[in-house]
Amino acid sequence: MEFLTGVKEKETLEISQILAGDYEGKQIRVKGAVHTIRNMGDVAFLVLRKREGLVQCIYEEGKSQFDIHDIKEGDTLEVSGTYKSDERAPHGFELRLDTVEVLSRPAEPMPLMISKWKMNTSLEAKLNHRAVALRNLRERAVFRIQEGITRGFRDFLYGQGFTEIHTPKLGAKSAEGGANLFKLEYFHRPAILQQSPQFYKQMMVGVFDRVFETAPVFRAEKHNTKRHLNEYTSLDFEMGYIDGFEDIMAMETGFLQYTMKLLSESYGEELRILGITLPKVDKIPAVRFDEAKQRVAEKYNRQFRNPFDLEPEEEHLIGEYFKEEFDSDFVFVTHYPSKKRPFYAMDDPADPTYTLSFDLLYKGLEITTGGQRIHDYDKLMEKIEKRGMETEGMEHYLSAFKHGMPPHGGLGIGLERLTMQLIGEDNVREATLFPRDLSRLEP
Amino acid sequence: MEFLTGVKEKETLEISQILAGDYEGKQIRVKGAVHTIRNMGDVAFLVLRKREGLVQCIYEEGKSQFDIHDIKEGDTLEVSGTYKSDERAPHGFELRLDTVEVLSRPAEPMPLMISKWKMNTSLEAKLNHRAVALRNLRERAVFRIQEGITRGFRDFLYGQGFTEIHTPKLGAKSAEGGANLFKLEYFHRPAILQQSPQFYKQMMVGVFDRVFETAPVFRAEKHNTKRHLNEYTSLDFEMGYIDGFEDIMAMETGFLQYTMKLLSESYGEELRILGITLPKVDKIPAVRFDEAKQRVAEKYNRQFRNPFDLEPEEEHLIGEYFKEEFDSDFVFVTHYPSKKRPFYAMDDPADPTYTLSFDLLYKGLEITTGGQRIHDYDKLMEKIEKRGMETEGMEHYLSAFKHGMPPHGGLGIGLERLTMQLIGEDNVREATLFPRDLSRLEP
Repeated sequence: MEFLTGVKEKETLEISQILAGDYEGKQIRVKGAVHTIRNMGDVAFLVLRKREGLVQCIYEEGKSQFDIHDIKEGDTLEVSGTYKSDERAPHGFELRLDTVEVLSRPAEPMPLMISKWKMNTSLEAKLNHRAVALRNLRERAVFRIQEGITRGFRDFLYGQGFTEIHTPKLGAKSAEGGANLFKLEYFHRPAILQQSPQFYKQMMVGVFDRVFETAPVFRAEKHNTKRHLNEYTSLDFEMGYIDGFEDIMAMETGFLQYTMKLLSESYGEELRILGITLPKVDKIPAVRFDEAKQRVAEKYNRQFRNPFDLEPEEEHLIGEYFKEEFDSDFVFVTHYPSKKRPFYAMDDPADPTYTLSFDLLYKGLEITTGGQRIHDYDKLMEKIEKRGMETEGMEHYLSAFKHGMPPHGGLGIGLERLTMQLIGEDNVREATLFPRDLSRLEP
Repeated sequence: MEFLTGVKEKETLEISQILAGDYEGKQIRVKGAVHTIRNMGDVAFLVLRKREGLVQCIYEEGKSQFDIHDIKEGDTLEVSGTYKSDERAPHGFELRLDTVEVLSRPAEPMPLMISKWKMNTSLEAKLNHRAVALRNLRERAVFRIQEGITRGFRDFLYGQGFTEIHTPKLGAKSAEGGANLFKLEYFHRPAILQQSPQFYKQMMVGVFDRVFETAPVFRAEKHNTKRHLNEYTSLDFEMGYIDGFEDIMAMETGFLQYTMKLLSESYGEELRILGITLPKVDKIPAVRFDEAKQRVAEKYNRQFRNPFDLEPEEEHLIGEYFKEEFDSDFVFVTHYPSKKRPFYAMDDPADPTYTLSFDLLYKGLEITTGGQRIHDYDKLMEKIEKRGMETEGMEHYLSAFKHGMPPHGGLGIGLERLTMQLIGEDNVREATLFPRDLSRLEP
């Protein structure tokens, strides 16, 4: 009989442990994967890849007690060596190697040059060899940044009194109607994959006042663009007892402020690797939809066809405009036309052609849609009837309203899009661990 | 043009703000939903439900500037009133009401007695009226506890150097083979819903050394029991450079220790509401599979048919045994027979009939399966061939091993099962926000 009492300190060290200690001249042990070997004859540079970065190890013939020719790229090792400060080395130190134990060994050499600073490889090749390509330091740093965003979202909202929920992805009916749904059979019944947690998070406002979820959503859209995915991670929140939809925008601004601070404090190494300068988020302009269209049309001397929608090019120009005029990478575009918004969006009492809703554009790309929702049962039924919609399958959603719901609103943020804009990429697949698109269902 | 600068303090107060201030005799404003009204004639008790609990408000005829008969259960209100300490009231204070503003109003009265301490309602009825039933304080407390578990899992693992990942739920092939998969059509190609992030998290160990995910998994199992769901939230982690599968059990023990502390520090109100005494997790016994079977057979004088599997009744007795003999609600059962484990499980070199794997039982129910995995490409291929399996569709998974993987292992925890055992319920649906089972696809 044995007992587990929790995590034990290991004798092998991580980089942060080494940097926090005083190891000059002392022998330490480290585990890692062989990132590169540069053999100069009597001396060789063996660089280990660990989760916190690289460790430079020096092999010296006659001193090190193994043969460097026995070590290959991709091996995983436990090495012992003597710590020596060297400001030219990563993290300012190197290890003079004594012994090496091989923990595992690849069967074949790498298909990609993952040890290069920038891989000269097509996106297609990187996606085909995803598990290997991500071993490149720059590639993997993207997903550390993505972790920071998700973590910032949750931690900020915990602090604001939100409750985290897990809503089902399998359902009989979806929030936004029948289009663009993946369909499947669920024990001899028709089912769909949810394209949004919309109905569920609204229902839960009646329970917890404020809720959030970070989970996958599924959209069977036949878009083949650089900014669409068929499965992505949605950062959703919904909050009750709001005074207006400005409360939602204020909360999102707070999230961005919190997250940029978190990234700068806890993900500095990854920001450095990717050369990212974090955007300013101390104040974010908000402009009405119609005003934004007009400003852009005037400044750039462009006329757009559809007065009720923003074309991608127009979103791009709005982003440019607010960067130039207000030095802001972000802009809230408010009061979207009612006909472009789902039935549950609250119309502006001052002019019901428009809604109390918004998109957040980041460098000219929509990364958030949000707004105030209708909370009154009768008004909700009225809007549903006016649109000629069926209530069949919506009984549970409507029942929450029938039994009372506070004024509320919320938003959904596309995690991969936000990551992509932050790291300055132009294809959302660069910011998706394993993208799902029209042609890609593997790996 | 307007600018958003972050979250503004509201003039209406939350319970924690009230308790942190000094409001005796002062007028404050509060928003909430009418949980109950008890009208005594000249005086009425109006109890508001807020996210942090209940606020008792006192209506006094002639003093309060509204008519209590205008207020109904389920209304959401903004009230103003004078703070008065009263240790009999929830949180030790009440509000002597001055004014009331009705923010919203239900169209129909509640279908369930949500204001009762314990609802005398069948599980079936509670699930049918989920959005309303969860407004009951005890019902909703369950999901606050569940939040604490998920939060504890993530926060603990962040601190242990794990990276959070988001892996796709749509795929061409699944980790554990063809059975029990939901199938769908993905742009004219056959697709499945992943029943586990197993392959992806293993591949990502080669990138980040340590990874975790908290996400839904889908199992098309035709089980109709109190402990099975067809969609549930899986808390998964996978870690590289382990010395043995004991490292995985130690990490899980650390998670449980961290989480029980978090629950006791930050979810005390919910623990109190549900009457939960947190289990001791300072040391968790680990016992071999065959030894566990033998001990139970001897002590309870029972013989079980299958020497290679644990029947639910046997798991239950093992739980009882370790509670009685070692006062532990948890027990790791190790060295499961190889034939009951997937191909990627590492066999015990001392006796390949068994694996370096484990289950964690909590009060006699399996809540975790984990273990060390095969990391050597040739050994993995050997095991696949020995089992007569196809490698088709596994190329990407196998490629990660072909190009080198460290020794590693991991586990998956069923969030709803862990929650259910912690709160002392006997049906996993009690701990699932919107359960999906053989008959339930709505709400």
